Amino acid sequence: MASDEFDIIRRFFNSGEIAFPIPEVGLGIGDDCALLRPATGMQLAMSMDILQEGVHFLPDADPYLLGKRTLLVNLSDLAAMGARPLCFTLGLCLPAADEVWLGSFSKGLAQVAREHNCPLIGGDLSASSPVHGSKTLCVQVHGELPVDSGLRRSGAKVGDLIYVTGSLGDAAAGLQVLSNTCKESLNEEHRAALVDAFFVPESRIEAGLMLRSLATSCIDLSDGLASDLVHILRASAVGASIALDALPLSVAVRAAHNEAEQRQLAISGGDDYELCFTVGSKNEEAMQRALGSIGVPVTRIGIITEGTQVQWCEFGEPIALEASGYKHFHAASEDLVQVTH
Amino acid sequence: MASDEFDIIRRFFNSGEIAFPIPEVGLGIGDDCALLRPATGMQLAMSMDILQEGVHFLPDADPYLLGKRTLLVNLSDLAAMGARPLCFTLGLCLPAADEVWLGSFSKGLAQVAREHNCPLIGGDLSASSPVHGSKTLCVQVHGELPVDSGLRRSGAKVGDLIYVTGSLGDAAAGLQVLSNTCKESLNEEHRAALVDAFFVPESRIEAGLMLRSLATSCIDLSDGLASDLVHILRASAVGASIALDALPLSVAVRAAHNEAEQRQLAISGGDDYELCFTVGSKNEEAMQRALGSIGVPVTRIGIITEGTQVQWCEFGEPIALEASGYKHFHAASEDLVQVTH
Repeated sequence: MASDEFDIIRRFFNSGEIAFPIPEVGLGIGDDCALLRPATGMQLAMSMDILQEGVHFLPDADPYLLGKRTLLVNLSDLAAMGARPLCFTLGLCLPAADEVWLGSFSKGLAQVAREHNCPLIGGDLSASSPVHGSKTLCVQVHGELPVDSGLRRSGAKVGDLIYVTGSLGDAAAGLQVLSNTCKESLNEEHRAALVDAFFVPESRIEAGLMLRSLATSCIDLSDGLASDLVHILRASAVGASIALDALPLSVAVRAAHNEAEQRQLAISGGDDYELCFTVGSKNEEAMQRALGSIGVPVTRIGIITEGTQVQWCEFGEPIALEASGYKHFHAASEDLVQVTH
Repeated sequence: MASDEFDIIRRFFNSGEIAFPIPEVGLGIGDDCALLRPATGMQLAMSMDILQEGVHFLPDADPYLLGKRTLLVNLSDLAAMGARPLCFTLGLCLPAADEVWLGSFSKGLAQVAREHNCPLIGGDLSASSPVHGSKTLCVQVHGELPVDSGLRRSGAKVGDLIYVTGSLGDAAAGLQVLSNTCKESLNEEHRAALVDAFFVPESRIEAGLMLRSLATSCIDLSDGLASDLVHILRASAVGASIALDALPLSVAVRAAHNEAEQRQLAISGGDDYELCFTVGSKNEEAMQRALGSIGVPVTRIGIITEGTQVQWCEFGEPIALEASGYKHFHAASEDLVQVTH
């Protein structure tokens, strides 16, 4: 059955499942613009992410899981800012109107949209180029937070403690499972846990809301700790000392990889969408209590120092380490086959 | 010289030329989210458009003109809503970090951003898939307008007069010049005018602001009159009678095409980004005065009727006409080589 873009929008995206009303949205899908009005005293936080087939996800990625992931990775930016999700827009380039794919993808999106009370309010749908017929997904999320608040990257102070939520390296290990490059002996339970970490990163929205008044800086880990921590350090004009032996690793990552690989995944893996944040020592206990009360595990991995560099340490001793996260367009022989964010 | 994504953002996009400060933007490029706060009593209007190489623009498109066009076609959605531009976000997928291309593209963007006092506040930059290495540009524009105002598609009433700004078909004719399918005898001046219409559509922002209190409905013409007018009719549950002989045609379109082609371009061409709007007869004169005062030409092309269809007329007589605008994913043998929006 032939569908044009307007049919597709109506059937798969402009439904009560995904484009449900919220008070802040005066007008959703179906006009030249959507209309949005933050409540009195609130400002909007906005973030855009593009996900491309062959770069950010594999061509055969499960569309339902991809739908969930597409929105979750964007919500992660709101979490890192301490903003409450409001609504999102979606730009979609597809090589064909595959209704099975569209049905599953929109179900995954709707599932996360409902969980976060964050409806779809507009966007754009286009056929891909006939020459370069791949999928491109572009999401912009909109959240709200009180005026004059917001967890920025720039607030870290010398002596602040560095924490991460959850565990590191799971998503990158999950990608190895998906691309059949993990070790053969890994059991099904661990494989499933790692793939799940890649497609369905834990939402840290609640944690972000709590950290807004407790943390001094925050970022979500999309490119890997080594890369993302540097953004905090540059924005705050400080350095850091990180205890490699303190990095939180899941049972599944430990089962799937040797120690050197675990460390590599935790530092450079990317795609975890956990929060990395700094907290002054006077707020450390309150932060632990707050995040403990909502069941979000946190691990202290280091301390903010003077200087501008990261000093990696092992059992208290500084060690030399070449570590970097993912950067698009980095170096001439860029490895674009590595799926990353 | 090798650049990674952060260098590229810093050098080409996070400059005072394009990411300049405005009071409503609390935080621009460089953190997990941008922060935006509409003024008291105002709401936000938002619209997203995706432009793809090979679908919406030709692979060899001049990057400076493409930069201008990318932002202008998005601003057109704000114009159609009667919103004042505030700021925009940009998602960019590129096969390579071509600095010449990036420099020209960002200059074109900056030119339009400055003209409309509408800075870049964030976005995402990614390498394209190694298999499908084409360019994809995604822009979301954000504008403001008073709460409880806004030019919607749904307000047309039976008896309202139908108007368009500017002339129709120029952009589609320009695309034929660009793809060397226009007639050989067309002179340089006309060729330049048509190409200019494609790349640099007239901004109708000022017209939209004036129409906010005068028009009953409005849409911008991106897919062509035949397609876009139907959106107004459906949203307003009305029909329309359109006088084909009244459609405004430029000198260049008349020089480039015979009468049948001119009509086809004006109805189905797309990419003009002129406004099509309806106005009650009591406001017709005020509307003409207002738009005349800012030098925006308007032409009355028809009237809103009962029913749900478009009746095309010629010299006052109804005629049968198969007319449609561009729809992505329409029909099995879709002509994706036709560049359109």
